[in-house]
Amino acid sequence: MSETVFAKIIRGEIPCHRVYEDEHVLSFLDVGPLSSGHTLVIPKEPAVTLDELSDESAAAIGRVLPRICRAVMQTTGASAYNVLQNNGSDAHQAVMHVHFHIIPKHEGKGLGIGWDAQDIDHEQAARLAESIASRL
Amino acid sequence: MSETVFAKIIRGEIPCHRVYEDEHVLSFLDVGPLSSGHTLVIPKEPAVTLDELSDESAAAIGRVLPRICRAVMQTTGASAYNVLQNNGSDAHQAVMHVHFHIIPKHEGKGLGIGWDAQDIDHEQAARLAESIASRL
Repeated sequence: MSETVFAKIIRGEIPCHRVYEDEHVLSFLDVGPLSSGHTLVIPKEPAVTLDELSDESAAAIGRVLPRICRAVMQTTGASAYNVLQNNGSDAHQAVMHVHFHIIPKHEGKGLGIGWDAQDIDHEQAARLAESIASRL
Repeated sequence: MSETVFAKIIRGEIPCHRVYEDEHVLSFLDVGPLSSGHTLVIPKEPAVTLDELSDESAAAIGRVLPRICRAVMQTTGASAYNVLQNNGSDAHQAVMHVHFHIIPKHEGKGLGIGWDAQDIDHEQAARLAESIASRL
């Protein structure tokens, strides 16, 4: 895996606007924010995509997400927000190290969402769910 | 808090295409999928938004997310995907019970993303980060 800017931030070689750190997790402001308070939460473990991350690191991130969301919303005064985590360049991932975005939605700014929902085919869905479940 | 369709799914009063369940977490296919394999992961705890969720439930979701993502990607053959969690109707939340979407990006379908990034103001960001950090 090639070196990412986040690896350098974790090692302290590049500065960041840090908001939280523990054994497994680092959180800091995004330098290209979609809105004021746009915050990143990353594992210290160097995984590219979420499916490659260890259970332990993923649990550590999950555990602190509500707290960080509360602190970001209290500080910005926003009442709505999106948590987004992109995997693969086709899915808008830019830095190849797992990161969760916390993006306040306020003052007309924030994440833009395109939602072209389909009708579910229940027979197909039943087979799909069975196949997914068999891998878990 | 008013009753949601997810509360009824958790209690088994409404059927779902279930892919995973444990003490804290239920996962099933979205009935209005953006792409084939669009999966929801929800806590059994009845919180409306992520900031209201307990650390324990949030950690339990975090812990299983990588595994569920792997199973969804293996089944669908997609190589890119987004994990999205919306909080508040202004941020596209439709069901008022915390839920994480796993949305495969393939065959031209998936989550649409609007990304209008701003330049960061480093002085302002330093104050913002300090304020967020002080609440953590």
